Amino acid sequence: SFQRANTKDEVGIVRGLAWTSVGGDTLQIEVNVMPGKGKFELTGQLGDVMKESARAGISFIRSVSRKYGIEPDYFDKNDIHIHIPEGAVPKDGPSAGITMATAMLSAITDQPVRADVAMTGEITLRGRVLPIGGLKEKILAAKTAKIKLVLVPKQNKKDVEEIAAEILEGIEVKFMDTMEEVLEEALVQKA
Amino acid sequence: SFQRANTKDEVGIVRGLAWTSVGGDTLQIEVNVMPGKGKFELTGQLGDVMKESARAGISFIRSVSRKYGIEPDYFDKNDIHIHIPEGAVPKDGPSAGITMATAMLSAITDQPVRADVAMTGEITLRGRVLPIGGLKEKILAAKTAKIKLVLVPKQNKKDVEEIAAEILEGIEVKFMDTMEEVLEEALVQKA
Amino acid sequence: SFQRANTKDEVGIVRGLAWTSVGGDTLQIEVNVMPGKGKFELTGQLGDVMKESARAGISFIRSVSRKYGIEPDYFDKNDIHIHIPEGAVPKDGPSAGITMATAMLSAITDQPVRADVAMTGEITLRGRVLPIGGLKEKILAAKTAKIKLVLVPKQNKKDVEEIAAEILEGIEVKFMDTMEEVLEEALVQKA
Amino acid sequence: SFQRANTKDEVGIVRGLAWTSVGGDTLQIEVNVMPGKGKFELTGQLGDVMKESARAGISFIRSVSRKYGIEPDYFDKNDIHIHIPEGAVPKDGPSAGITMATAMLSAITDQPVRADVAMTGEITLRGRVLPIGGLKEKILAAKTAKIKLVLVPKQNKKDVEEIAAEILEGIEVKFMDTMEEVLEEALVQKA
Amino acid sequence: SFQRANTKDEVGIVRGLAWTSVGGDTLQIEVNVMPGKGKFELTGQLGDVMKESARAGISFIRSVSRKYGIEPDYFDKNDIHIHIPEGAVPKDGPSAGITMATAMLSAITDQPVRADVAMTGEITLRGRVLPIGGLKEKILAAKTAKIKLVLVPKQNKKDVEEIAAEILEGIEVKFMDTMEEVLEEALVQKA
Amino acid sequence: SFQRANTKDEVGIVRGLAWTSVGGDTLQIEVNVMPGKGKFELTGQLGDVMKESARAGISFIRSVSRKYGIEPDYFDKNDIHIHIPEGAVPKDGPSAGITMATAMLSAITDQPVRADVAMTGEITLRGRVLPIGGLKEKILAAKTAKIKLVLVPKQNKKDVEEIAAEILEGIEVKFMDTMEEVLEEALVQKA
Ligand SMILES: [Ca+2]
Ligand SMILES: [Ca+2]
Ligand SMILES: [Ca+2]
Ligand SMILES: [Ca+2]
Ligand SMILES: [Ca+2]
Ligand SMILES: [Ca+2]
Ligand SMILES: [Ca+2]
Ligand SMILES: [Ca+2]
Ligand SMILES: [Ca+2]
Ligand SMILES: [Ca+2]
Ligand SMILES: [Ca+2]
Ligand SMILES: [Ca+2]
Repeated sequence: SFQRANTKDEVGIVRGLAWTSVGGDTLQIEVNVMPGKGKFELTGQLGDVMKESARAGISFIRSVSRKYGIEPDYFDKNDIHIHIPEGAVPKDGPSAGITMATAMLSAITDQPVRADVAMTGEITLRGRVLPIGGLKEKILAAKTAKIKLVLVPKQNKKDVEEIAAEILEGIEVKFMDTMEEVLEEALVQKA
Repeated sequence: SFQRANTKDEVGIVRGLAWTSVGGDTLQIEVNVMPGKGKFELTGQLGDVMKESARAGISFIRSVSRKYGIEPDYFDKNDIHIHIPEGAVPKDGPSAGITMATAMLSAITDQPVRADVAMTGEITLRGRVLPIGGLKEKILAAKTAKIKLVLVPKQNKKDVEEIAAEILEGIEVKFMDTMEEVLEEALVQKA
Repeated sequence: SFQRANTKDEVGIVRGLAWTSVGGDTLQIEVNVMPGKGKFELTGQLGDVMKESARAGISFIRSVSRKYGIEPDYFDKNDIHIHIPEGAVPKDGPSAGITMATAMLSAITDQPVRADVAMTGEITLRGRVLPIGGLKEKILAAKTAKIKLVLVPKQNKKDVEEIAAEILEGIEVKFMDTMEEVLEEALVQKA
Repeated sequence: SFQRANTKDEVGIVRGLAWTSVGGDTLQIEVNVMPGKGKFELTGQLGDVMKESARAGISFIRSVSRKYGIEPDYFDKNDIHIHIPEGAVPKDGPSAGITMATAMLSAITDQPVRADVAMTGEITLRGRVLPIGGLKEKILAAKTAKIKLVLVPKQNKKDVEEIAAEILEGIEVKFMDTMEEVLEEALVQKA
Repeated sequence: SFQRANTKDEVGIVRGLAWTSVGGDTLQIEVNVMPGKGKFELTGQLGDVMKESARAGISFIRSVSRKYGIEPDYFDKNDIHIHIPEGAVPKDGPSAGITMATAMLSAITDQPVRADVAMTGEITLRGRVLPIGGLKEKILAAKTAKIKLVLVPKQNKKDVEEIAAEILEGIEVKFMDTMEEVLEEALVQKA
Repeated sequence: SFQRANTKDEVGIVRGLAWTSVGGDTLQIEVNVMPGKGKFELTGQLGDVMKESARAGISFIRSVSRKYGIEPDYFDKNDIHIHIPEGAVPKDGPSAGITMATAMLSAITDQPVRADVAMTGEITLRGRVLPIGGLKEKILAAKTAKIKLVLVPKQNKKDVEEIAAEILEGIEVKFMDTMEEVLEEALVQKA
């Protein structure tokens, strides 16, 4: 079932975009960080490609932790849990990579994510944003969910250019090359 | 076989509602907490969706532990065991999420659960309550088991409104949006 | 092959009752406890339902350990091994639950079990005794093995009432609602 | 290929008897014990019933360790490895139970095993010896391998009585009820 | 999709060459090293042959660590993560062996890799470079990606000699016998 | 592809002989030992029989470590990695047992192995050498690889005697009963 955008900016929750045989959908990725022992948990019937994508994301975050003010021993002293409702629906593929990484960094640094942003894109270990499929269906789903800004991989630019102007009306699309750019757009800057 | 509601309020036992091809049923979720090393055990032939649902529940509880007066190192120094009789019957799906979380919080905080309450709903990591299926059959099963109050997801309101008044007679249905609301209804407040 | 009842009361050995397509049978559950590190081992070709049943039993025992004079750190400093001969015969189902729990408690507390008792019943985490199947065949097997007392779930009372008086002749059947009752009947009280 | 009996009594090597669709065979069970951390290794393409049988054997030995002069922390400070050549041939079943236990106890206590003895029988956790199949074929294989004494379960007595006298000529068969009896026959007593 | 060569020399990123039923392709292997506990992670849908190849590579590096100035306890105090985008495409085979080893050594020693180099070859534990398949297709892919130098196993020399001169035009091919030679060509020497 | 014998004696590399449906082949077993924590790694697509064979070998070496001057805590403080190129070719069976054990002992004791020796034979936990198959094909492969001495199990003597003299011309075959004999032939004695 389609869900509206969050009404307020929250920490550790990011809107992703999925594409299935029956069309696009939004999925709200939730991350909890808790004092612990460095455990990394993934629930919501994620397939192995999606799990590997989450692991690439956490390695990326660890590799840039200093830049974002994360303590060196943070990942030993905390547990990270990513969950994607609806729990009975199998999910897979690499396109939630940047969404999961954004939700994790938000939860770790306690910075809220803009409630009116959705995103889609494969992440690499070095924070590059790689192209994904189903852009038209995903943007339609974002509009239905009242999203205002959609972040997509720069390498998908030509796919967006092929979408009818009517569909893109009322929604802004920005092209991302790196996770650094994604985080700049999605995280609400601390005052 | 149908079982009557508990005759007294107990700690760590919560009545859930299941829905199978042969109709609704109640299932009594049991939780034991024991001094231990942070082990989390799940028995009763639970499928992977149900196991993930339990894990989402425990992460939710860990994330709000301060609010409920749970010691920071509680989850390192205790083992938690969730068991759902009847042990030979396979069970799956996300709809016991809020029931398992309530039973765990009851056992951890040693607060009894109202014996005349049953509940059904998917839980998310952040404690949101998501809609589930089979509401009519579940409510019928609750009535047969002499339950007085049924807690269901707010997003299932329209499904309840479609149920014949006759069926709803003699049983109260309350709509839940968050685990906070569920716990307020289900836990017997300490005097 | 049918085996006679033990000729003397032993610690850590309890007679269970099984029910297969070829009729009832008795099975002698053996438990060894040894100084160790809290390992829990299950052998004898036990299926997953039976293994979960054993785990529910050990959690029940841990939760009532104080009552039975078991040291708080007992389960960290000892290993428990449950074995059910005949080792090549696959066994499954929840009906050996109370038998395994009784054998474990006997071994842990070093109290002998009455040699002329057999039992069958599902155990829950909280020590409730739930109903099982194949009662008639099991009672026949108990008689053949010269058992004098059979402990069965109270919820199976109606099934026993349907068994011909002839079959029940010479064997006593007692109805159990909780593990507490089972232990009172089965354990030989220390002088 | 058939192998003759060892020419001298060795520590940690015991002759077992196997029974396959193509007849009986002997198999030489080898055990090494080494300073270590309590690891228990099983190689030689053993099936799960056979592996469980080995585990029952080691638990039995642990439970009687005091009687055989084994230090309480022996099983924490040593690794035990059971190997059954020929490594490419799958082996399974419970009938090597007493053979593996004898080989382990020999290796642990450094007592040689009589080179002219072979044995077959299921072991239980408490050291009882349970009946097995294929006795006739196994005894024929033992004779071919120039074995002088075969230890078999007491409960197989009737099976031995049905074997033609001609076959039993030149080989002694002793009936065992407990591992204690097996060890008394098989181990070469320290001078 | 084909990707151009990196525009600048980077640490921990090496261009490999793949060969599939639809022709050659380049794949950019990424390695992150992070303070940790010696964990070794492999993502990007790598098959078991490829994973074993990565493990051979890390053992090779450990065995020559002194030569490359790597601290003796480096592999206990750091985690190594190898990821190969595109994350949804299954990858397998031993031919990325030298590429993964080069990327790891670059990341560990913080030496950049030449951006205009690509390579292919099986690695052994001792750093020998073994021959691989699909050379012609791989070289075509390298040219398309504007690679200037391709490192291939010396034992593939005859395969290269069979490739049309036209195809080899504009790209240099060097023949490698050992990882030492590979590293000399690929790593940008520290000033 | 056939490979010539090593041109010089190396530590931790031993030539084995394999036998497949397409004839005999040589395979060069590589072993690296590295400061570590007692990890034992096996790569090169080894089947489970071959892996168990390697484990029997390492247990044998541990049991005779004093004799070969290996420190008692060596196996706790070092990791051992066995790799068999070509990494994409599945390998199985027990016949590389003595080859893997020789390569490990060479690497552990830092004694070179004669470059002109190849070997084949199953190893047991106690260092006995058991017979294997495909002798004729293996000896042909050894000759092609310019091997001078082949070590084979004594129990294969009759198989060698059936091989045509022409085939055996130019290659020496020695018969081994124990690993002790194998090591005496294969290891280059320290000056
Ligand atoms: Ca949806
Ligand atoms: Ca998959
Ligand atoms: Ca029921
Ligand atoms: Ca499932
Ligand atoms: Ca029986
Ligand atoms: Ca099952
Ligand atoms: Ca044989
Ligand atoms: Ca089996
Ligand atoms: Ca590509
Ligand atoms: Ca594979
Ligand atoms: Ca070859
Ligand atoms: Ca196999």
